[in-house]
Amino acid sequence: MELESIPYVLDTFFAIFAMVLIIFMVPGFAMLEAGLVRTKNVTAVLTINTLIYAVASLAFLLFGYSIAFGDFGSDSMSKWAAFLFQMAFVGKVINIMSGGVSERAKVIPLAFFTVIMASVIYPLVVNITWGANFLEGTILNLSMYDLAGSTVIHSTGGWALLAAILIIGNRKGRYPKTGGVRVIPASNIPLVTLGALLLWIGWFGFNGGSVGSISSKESANAVALTIMNTNTAGLAGAIMVSIIMYIKYSKLDLTMILNGALGGLVAITAGPDLYNIYVPILIGAIGGALVVFAVSFFDKLRIDDPVGALSVHLVNGVWGTLAVGIFASNGESITFLGQLKGVVVIGVFAFVISYIVLFFLNKIVELRAHSDEEMQGLDVEECGLEAYPEFKRAF
Amino acid sequence: MELESIPYVLDTFFAIFAMVLIIFMVPGFAMLEAGLVRTKNVTAVLTINTLIYAVASLAFLLFGYSIAFGDFGSDSMSKWAAFLFQMAFVGKVINIMSGGVSERAKVIPLAFFTVIMASVIYPLVVNITWGANFLEGTILNLSMYDLAGSTVIHSTGGWALLAAILIIGNRKGRYPKTGGVRVIPASNIPLVTLGALLLWIGWFGFNGGSVGSISSKESANAVALTIMNTNTAGLAGAIMVSIIMYIKYSKLDLTMILNGALGGLVAITAGPDLYNIYVPILIGAIGGALVVFAVSFFDKLRIDDPVGALSVHLVNGVWGTLAVGIFASNGESITFLGQLKGVVVIGVFAFVISYIVLFFLNKIVELRAHSDEEMQGLDVEECGLEAYPEFKRAF
Amino acid sequence: MELESIPYVLDTFFAIFAMVLIIFMVPGFAMLEAGLVRTKNVTAVLTINTLIYAVASLAFLLFGYSIAFGDFGSDSMSKWAAFLFQMAFVGKVINIMSGGVSERAKVIPLAFFTVIMASVIYPLVVNITWGANFLEGTILNLSMYDLAGSTVIHSTGGWALLAAILIIGNRKGRYPKTGGVRVIPASNIPLVTLGALLLWIGWFGFNGGSVGSISSKESANAVALTIMNTNTAGLAGAIMVSIIMYIKYSKLDLTMILNGALGGLVAITAGPDLYNIYVPILIGAIGGALVVFAVSFFDKLRIDDPVGALSVHLVNGVWGTLAVGIFASNGESITFLGQLKGVVVIGVFAFVISYIVLFFLNKIVELRAHSDEEMQGLDVEECGLEAYPEFKRAF
Repeated sequence: MELESIPYVLDTFFAIFAMVLIIFMVPGFAMLEAGLVRTKNVTAVLTINTLIYAVASLAFLLFGYSIAFGDFGSDSMSKWAAFLFQMAFVGKVINIMSGGVSERAKVIPLAFFTVIMASVIYPLVVNITWGANFLEGTILNLSMYDLAGSTVIHSTGGWALLAAILIIGNRKGRYPKTGGVRVIPASNIPLVTLGALLLWIGWFGFNGGSVGSISSKESANAVALTIMNTNTAGLAGAIMVSIIMYIKYSKLDLTMILNGALGGLVAITAGPDLYNIYVPILIGAIGGALVVFAVSFFDKLRIDDPVGALSVHLVNGVWGTLAVGIFASNGESITFLGQLKGVVVIGVFAFVISYIVLFFLNKIVELRAHSDEEMQGLDVEECGLEAYPEFKRAF
Repeated sequence: MELESIPYVLDTFFAIFAMVLIIFMVPGFAMLEAGLVRTKNVTAVLTINTLIYAVASLAFLLFGYSIAFGDFGSDSMSKWAAFLFQMAFVGKVINIMSGGVSERAKVIPLAFFTVIMASVIYPLVVNITWGANFLEGTILNLSMYDLAGSTVIHSTGGWALLAAILIIGNRKGRYPKTGGVRVIPASNIPLVTLGALLLWIGWFGFNGGSVGSISSKESANAVALTIMNTNTAGLAGAIMVSIIMYIKYSKLDLTMILNGALGGLVAITAGPDLYNIYVPILIGAIGGALVVFAVSFFDKLRIDDPVGALSVHLVNGVWGTLAVGIFASNGESITFLGQLKGVVVIGVFAFVISYIVLFFLNKIVELRAHSDEEMQGLDVEECGLEAYPEFKRAF
Repeated sequence: MELESIPYVLDTFFAIFAMVLIIFMVPGFAMLEAGLVRTKNVTAVLTINTLIYAVASLAFLLFGYSIAFGDFGSDSMSKWAAFLFQMAFVGKVINIMSGGVSERAKVIPLAFFTVIMASVIYPLVVNITWGANFLEGTILNLSMYDLAGSTVIHSTGGWALLAAILIIGNRKGRYPKTGGVRVIPASNIPLVTLGALLLWIGWFGFNGGSVGSISSKESANAVALTIMNTNTAGLAGAIMVSIIMYIKYSKLDLTMILNGALGGLVAITAGPDLYNIYVPILIGAIGGALVVFAVSFFDKLRIDDPVGALSVHLVNGVWGTLAVGIFASNGESITFLGQLKGVVVIGVFAFVISYIVLFFLNKIVELRAHSDEEMQGLDVEECGLEAYPEFKRAF
């Protein structure tokens, strides 16, 4: 064996390992969301999750990847491994968005939006951050540090979701005219837990793989530190939410605790390689707390997000990116203003373009299920399959 | 560290990585099949899946491996890692078969068949394809290219299943005397989805690991290309079926979409390292389409396969092996006729020997549950455990 | 690339790989236990499983790791990877304990106990076995061989569980005053199966990673042999229990079969690198048989363990550690008496200290749910969430 080929081999192997972990996020999102919605919409949620993976990955192979990175070249690892790793991310952006419009958005229109998001919108976001960067030299050129995508992935998906909710609207009966919020309980807590834990495991590949190499002592250390800090922020998010819930309600609301963990994970994602072992505790704990307060906040605004995706991904995507500017600013390549500029530029771009695309898509193929379909549940009309046909409903 | 030991270490590590991914197919098949059958047969399905893994792996350790490969030797990686990788495949052949006779075949007889399949039948198939090859120099010597087992694994399991269905028969009431097909809905769609996605992930190890080495630039590229093409065929299968279902029924039948993805994955398995990035789209899309039409076809023949295993594994195992002859023939080592000969020889062998073994096994220990046991569901009689004892049945 | 950094990189990568597999045991334990309890306690079980991972891992980061190992140093791999691997084990000790007191122990007190276990008790056990060893030179100095923790992890968790059951008591109605045992069926067999299979997969990292290195031919062989033997013992445990159950009851009780597999896996954990390929069959088969008989035995003693954790982890932890003394004694570093001494010293320490801690904790925050809360199920009172709110109960 030639010594010079070892880094190539190791980094290829590592990229494949990381990619596989990220693909566990496909069942992760699917189970999480299927557990959070009512039984009558479970098959529809699972169908859109499956289609998002299929459609987004193929669109990224055919169009998106070259928009983002220019070509399939890579000389530090197999170019196919480099592609696979990037491909594994794409669907996540749309998973975030589709989860938040569950129980009323139709499957086929979301699949169309997936094509556009994975072919153009997300690749443009990657282009100006991790990719070829067509903004270089312009006033919009970004210096944001975002290792694994607090902004690039999570906020982008979150902004697209906000646009979608504004266009599609809330679930019927969620905010009664008499005021207040009608609680719609999650239908299957084991699935929610399984999904969240699979997402957590996927995050080790998501963030660890984003270091990009493991073939030197320095990069191996960076990978291990990244995974440790990623995990720590998730732990802190879960614990923080547990404490808040117990103090406020004397109950440990598990769906909120798991969303707290996910919030911590989103928040650390911008800079897991930049911190010592204590800062992630703070970032994750704040991330968890933000989830709790954001869920109430969006309910006050009467913005209906059945799975808490805005609170987990949008709010913490912003928080995590700014946290890099707070805790890891070096005054040169990383500054708070540089981070803020990234958040704003990507946010405006992702929200505006998603809004426009969804607005016109809504004119062509209605995004929202009809009222009686929504009442009956989307499964029968969209999929022709009930999720649990033999189980008798309690109501 | 000595330079010469690095490939040995890397390939051992990689074989272990691939083996672990393939083992995820054990819960993959278990969840898929448990979700596809009625609640009254779920525990029996899970039990046979568990026993298949246990019995097949142990039989392969004690008998099968040496029949297939001669001995436990390997000098390019740890011989135990080489064994583990091969062992991970064995149960799959029988999973394919057991799934298709669900809801009427008894557990213990299937466990006996598992012993014979894993000790002798499958090892002989491997012997003449990937192994020691006792046919070398004879007229039956095969030149089929089958990287990861479109024929060796999937068709073999499919032929065994066809033999089993012919002997065991259909589920009561599936094909009423008045004609037509009685639809028997899947009982748990989240489990079906989880299982299919775990199988998909396992396939990365199944096919990627079959390259056999990652320790040179060339082999690392081959591994990455293999995994990319494997995934692409799955994507194309899912999308193709979605399109067909939507055009035909205006409904996105998720179980069919997932089977379409699996069909694409089976079809690419013979040659994922041989194609550019576009051919797998075609192979996978055709694979998906074949699943849709084969499901109807077998129903017309009144061959009852509750999980669609014949359509996914047998039909696409044949298609994928022939596809190598169509898209990657080089006129010398790979030819269409060589591929066809492999399909026919293995097919005849696997079907005939399985039929004979099952025929005599059926005389000794009845393969089929009694009529009243079938009506009641196999769980109570075979396992003494209901799968969901607290959930009230809707019918 | 420098040749000298390759082992560092490889062993870091391998430790991360092993750690990720072990983290799959988090959903593994969660799904197993959630499936084994009644629907009214499922959310509470999932909550404590989630909190155990969060709390134990953070406590180990902040306090436990340095008690166990002295500092974060490591020069053969990234110190963060070494930490991650050790961290992945900690929660398991408490999972074992929490599972056995399911359906009556409250969540918050268990979380407090988790802090103490992960910060002090378990780290002290590690200190005197795998770690800094403050007993060195004293009469209590241990020479026990325990590669991956039959005693250090599994018995320790088991002894803590025995202490907890003695303090907390049995579930109401489990042992009626009129004698006998009331069977309380598992509520969700697919979850039990999924959980057990995820644990099985996690074990490959648990034991394989405990070899500590993969970067030489010898260590690569040791890793592969370890994983093969680990798997073999699980296979043998499952098969042995199947045979026993079939002979005794003519039924294949799947929950018992899966616990048999886990028993075999626990038993092999002390010395999977020490045996040839046949000894693990014997150790695993005995491990499986022990599970069957221990479950009856603890029921005769009226010790209520809803998930069989004492039989799986305590009994087989002891058996596996002694098995090393029987099958791999070399008369010098490994002796039967040395193994026995380890079992006794750790057993006395873990039981006594856990008992004392739980006794006082019980005075401060009552460990057991109130009688009416237990009847209603813990989910509503502890978590405010039912696990399956839409599914109608059959009773």
